[in-house]
Amino acid sequence: MSKFNETTRGVYLITVTPFKDDGALDLASTDRMVDFCLEQGVDGLTILGIMGEAPKLTAEESRTFVRQVLNRVNGRIPIVVGASAPGFASMSELTKSVMDLGAAGVMVAPPPSVRTDDQICAYFDMVNETLGPDVPWCLQDHPGATTVQMSTAVVLRILRNSPRCVMLKHEDWPGLAKLSAVRAATAKGELRRISILTGNGGGLFLPEELVRGADGAMTGFAYPEMMVEVCKAYFAGEVERAFDLYDAYLPLAKYEQQAGPGLAVRKYILARRGVIASDAVRKPGPKLSALDIADIERLIARQERKLRALA
Amino acid sequence: MSKFNETTRGVYLITVTPFKDDGALDLASTDRMVDFCLEQGVDGLTILGIMGEAPKLTAEESRTFVRQVLNRVNGRIPIVVGASAPGFASMSELTKSVMDLGAAGVMVAPPPSVRTDDQICAYFDMVNETLGPDVPWCLQDHPGATTVQMSTAVVLRILRNSPRCVMLKHEDWPGLAKLSAVRAATAKGELRRISILTGNGGGLFLPEELVRGADGAMTGFAYPEMMVEVCKAYFAGEVERAFDLYDAYLPLAKYEQQAGPGLAVRKYILARRGVIASDAVRKPGPKLSALDIADIERLIARQERKLRALA
Amino acid sequence: MSKFNETTRGVYLITVTPFKDDGALDLASTDRMVDFCLEQGVDGLTILGIMGEAPKLTAEESRTFVRQVLNRVNGRIPIVVGASAPGFASMSELTKSVMDLGAAGVMVAPPPSVRTDDQICAYFDMVNETLGPDVPWCLQDHPGATTVQMSTAVVLRILRNSPRCVMLKHEDWPGLAKLSAVRAATAKGELRRISILTGNGGGLFLPEELVRGADGAMTGFAYPEMMVEVCKAYFAGEVERAFDLYDAYLPLAKYEQQAGPGLAVRKYILARRGVIASDAVRKPGPKLSALDIADIERLIARQERKLRALA
Amino acid sequence: MSKFNETTRGVYLITVTPFKDDGALDLASTDRMVDFCLEQGVDGLTILGIMGEAPKLTAEESRTFVRQVLNRVNGRIPIVVGASAPGFASMSELTKSVMDLGAAGVMVAPPPSVRTDDQICAYFDMVNETLGPDVPWCLQDHPGATTVQMSTAVVLRILRNSPRCVMLKHEDWPGLAKLSAVRAATAKGELRRISILTGNGGGLFLPEELVRGADGAMTGFAYPEMMVEVCKAYFAGEVERAFDLYDAYLPLAKYEQQAGPGLAVRKYILARRGVIASDAVRKPGPKLSALDIADIERLIARQERKLRALA
Repeated sequence: MSKFNETTRGVYLITVTPFKDDGALDLASTDRMVDFCLEQGVDGLTILGIMGEAPKLTAEESRTFVRQVLNRVNGRIPIVVGASAPGFASMSELTKSVMDLGAAGVMVAPPPSVRTDDQICAYFDMVNETLGPDVPWCLQDHPGATTVQMSTAVVLRILRNSPRCVMLKHEDWPGLAKLSAVRAATAKGELRRISILTGNGGGLFLPEELVRGADGAMTGFAYPEMMVEVCKAYFAGEVERAFDLYDAYLPLAKYEQQAGPGLAVRKYILARRGVIASDAVRKPGPKLSALDIADIERLIARQERKLRALA
Repeated sequence: MSKFNETTRGVYLITVTPFKDDGALDLASTDRMVDFCLEQGVDGLTILGIMGEAPKLTAEESRTFVRQVLNRVNGRIPIVVGASAPGFASMSELTKSVMDLGAAGVMVAPPPSVRTDDQICAYFDMVNETLGPDVPWCLQDHPGATTVQMSTAVVLRILRNSPRCVMLKHEDWPGLAKLSAVRAATAKGELRRISILTGNGGGLFLPEELVRGADGAMTGFAYPEMMVEVCKAYFAGEVERAFDLYDAYLPLAKYEQQAGPGLAVRKYILARRGVIASDAVRKPGPKLSALDIADIERLIARQERKLRALA
Repeated sequence: MSKFNETTRGVYLITVTPFKDDGALDLASTDRMVDFCLEQGVDGLTILGIMGEAPKLTAEESRTFVRQVLNRVNGRIPIVVGASAPGFASMSELTKSVMDLGAAGVMVAPPPSVRTDDQICAYFDMVNETLGPDVPWCLQDHPGATTVQMSTAVVLRILRNSPRCVMLKHEDWPGLAKLSAVRAATAKGELRRISILTGNGGGLFLPEELVRGADGAMTGFAYPEMMVEVCKAYFAGEVERAFDLYDAYLPLAKYEQQAGPGLAVRKYILARRGVIASDAVRKPGPKLSALDIADIERLIARQERKLRALA
Repeated sequence: MSKFNETTRGVYLITVTPFKDDGALDLASTDRMVDFCLEQGVDGLTILGIMGEAPKLTAEESRTFVRQVLNRVNGRIPIVVGASAPGFASMSELTKSVMDLGAAGVMVAPPPSVRTDDQICAYFDMVNETLGPDVPWCLQDHPGATTVQMSTAVVLRILRNSPRCVMLKHEDWPGLAKLSAVRAATAKGELRRISILTGNGGGLFLPEELVRGADGAMTGFAYPEMMVEVCKAYFAGEVERAFDLYDAYLPLAKYEQQAGPGLAVRKYILARRGVIASDAVRKPGPKLSALDIADIERLIARQERKLRALA
């Protein structure tokens, strides 16, 4: 099995959390979703992230969902669990619980309350202390969701201070310059090699990020096969083919990436593909209109035509 | 016993959560703090608010602390519990649990993600649905902490749509005009009477707010007797005496109200007064310097002189 | 000549402000840029917007630039000038000055200081009073730049209260639902017909917005012919062709839309196309790296291949 | 005459900008206000700051007002002019213009768009370049107005990089720790001596800030004599008397410090004291209600009683 460490490459899919129409956790769909991801060739899964509606679950539901995913995966690929929490006591409790269940590691984003470079770095010193020497973790750099802007200098400081931080989830936007700067720091011997998976919604800059040295993607998209194939083509040296594949999916990826409605779009398509039984999103959450669905159906039809032309 | 309802008057103290020096919950100090509050004459307690370091507790610690306070109070005064949560499933679970333990009601603030009037009102429609017809609750209007700015029109809409919202915790700043507008709406028959307790840190505008029609204070301060005595004097018609008492405490209240260090100041004074055993604040949290402590000691000495002059 | 009013359709290009390498205004390039826009078939120009680096010009430079553009256009198409200002005295002064020079109207966005529905509407009442009955204006709804979130209800209130507001620059993101709601209000007779031009960077949702009833685009892109051709095809009933054209440009539009570097990308391409002499951006502003330029060149080459295939 | 440099001590009053009832600049009141400030013993004036409604003036009105103040002062005390601007071209133009008129220096705050340590420092490098070697300037650290949080490390970096920055306007809140840290840096030889004037509204922490090493205050208050007397007493070694004086004014200072209504309170009192002819505030701006005025009158009456007791 692939490992969650500094050399990780490929696609870690951010999964949704499937609900039934009445809002209850849907464990059968959870199993089906795991199977689907494995069939599409993803290299890992990330669960209980923002797009997984984690804050809308009770603590007990979170545990149930994590357990279900880990059981179904059964060690075939690594599972990373979102462990951002308003306090270190909860972060510690959650981390211990999911590592005991078999998670490969956790992912942590900074809370909105930290602003200056020193505040951000001090926060991650406490994260290090909280997670301890045995838990590999991923630093999530996602100012769009957290409002925390980490300069390249801060990211480098955190990575240097955090021996167990093995991965950067690169989700700043625009962020290509930061990605290049982190890779350059390693090239100059100023930073050990770390894994960088990119997370701009649906992989919206995936090929440009691969060119800059990303190891792959950690994000969600209703067509994970796009990210798998683009990475495969790129790492096989077929750069233009990677771009061609990606371009075929871009119009729909762009549509699915809309903050807010995006999650409903993703669940609609996953339900349409038979992966999950219901596209229910818990409140407060978006609902699709008939006009939204017409948009999606047109984009899917166009996408299928383009893929046939590429095949 | 006084009730938590639309007619509530007096002082609901926002308590701290006492920790031992090692950061563990200090249940003996919790009991002593409850006794102290009752001796000072407060009319109710509010626990697990922001100044109670609620987000830094695990779910289990929260339950333990609530249980300890409720047991010690033993029905002598109403206890309100902060129930703001990132999702409605957690809010429902927490509310059910504390009401079962004997809480008088809960307090809810909007999440930072709601911005427009319609978003805020829709959020509280879901709060109503979540809390149901049996749980009286307090609307917390605290833009300084939540970043959500509720206009007077929005506060009135929420109060009209929420039959079980019995109290407004008025904590907008500056907010005197809003307070007057809510009272005027009731005077004009546009809104049923509700209780308004004010919450500007340490009661920083308490006498002005009483003049505008506030029913008292819901906030924290290391000298709750100030708020109790100011309210008593004011409601007894001794307006200038209410201002005199308040003015004697204002320099220290102002110092304790500093966002960030304020909680450490409060715990320092409570420990100094023998109420809690340790002034420990959980990380991430403020620490006092020697200069801070010198400031506090000077302000306490000056305050004691003024109170002797007033006696 | 086409008019700037409630029936306006087509493409209003947000122009850049050309500088020489030393940062001085480049009036020769300004003329060439105007000629280029007219050749590409745009229906109007919008100058002194955010992407025009308006805040980096002195008052005198702004006047010079406006005069130069108006002289070169010489009445062939309408010119709209950004008139957002920190105070109404400046807004009034600027508006009078550009209308006297021959502008067709102005564009106003709300300042970051207004938050609640009532604050936003009160602000635009003052805008109405300031601009008076003779100046047609465009309401810019761009929360990404202003941080002001206007709900559909607020947009409708402003449009109803503003008899001279003839156009909505629709730039909220995601904003398709709001666009449909404004059109529905007119269909139901709740709002007079207004022009809606969309502004998501480089027309990033242009075809979807046309489907929702937009009248065209008001945004910047180094290939204005894309927006012109997409609108023409769409309004001629060739919907799939409109999407095909758009898809050919999308990868580069997406790249140019990056907040920050985007302006440098746009000026780089305009200089490469011979429209402006220098790609200089005034400080503080972005600079392109060699890696950025390699990205752009690849995307241009790919775009040209796709356009040949479509021709 | 006292100088505006690294050794400046005392009170620089942030003045209001007087308007007539119809909103026009009131130059007669401007003269009277200057005379009043000189009579009260202030050591300098700061004009065109936020509380001076600078953004609501046209460029021409700003020049007129600056000229009027400088003429009336006629070199008796230094005048500092707010020069924060959205672009460096405007900052340069404004600075040159006011220095030519006889200003002692300018004051600059960072724009809301800079967030990370590196962005803030890079911004002030450009400020240095823009202002040049001949203009002494004051760094305004006021996150409440700018949203820019500058850590102590960043303030020290800016001061080290800026040979002509002679003063820190210390307005972070809470900010006592930062003030102590800047003074400690000088004590340790890590930073040259600079002047620190504090600016928390109405001098709300003035005595505590003097204890920490502040050189005085740069802020506005309708009773500038309070700040003058507090500083004199403190620097004469009468520490408790400084606190006593301050405490007599604190309830009204607190009331005047309310963001929003505060400016209307200040102008109301200045008009009541005969300093300015009208309390008009330009739109958008606050208006006082009858209840507000009743509050102010009560606080003034109480303050006068306390001052008589102290005399």
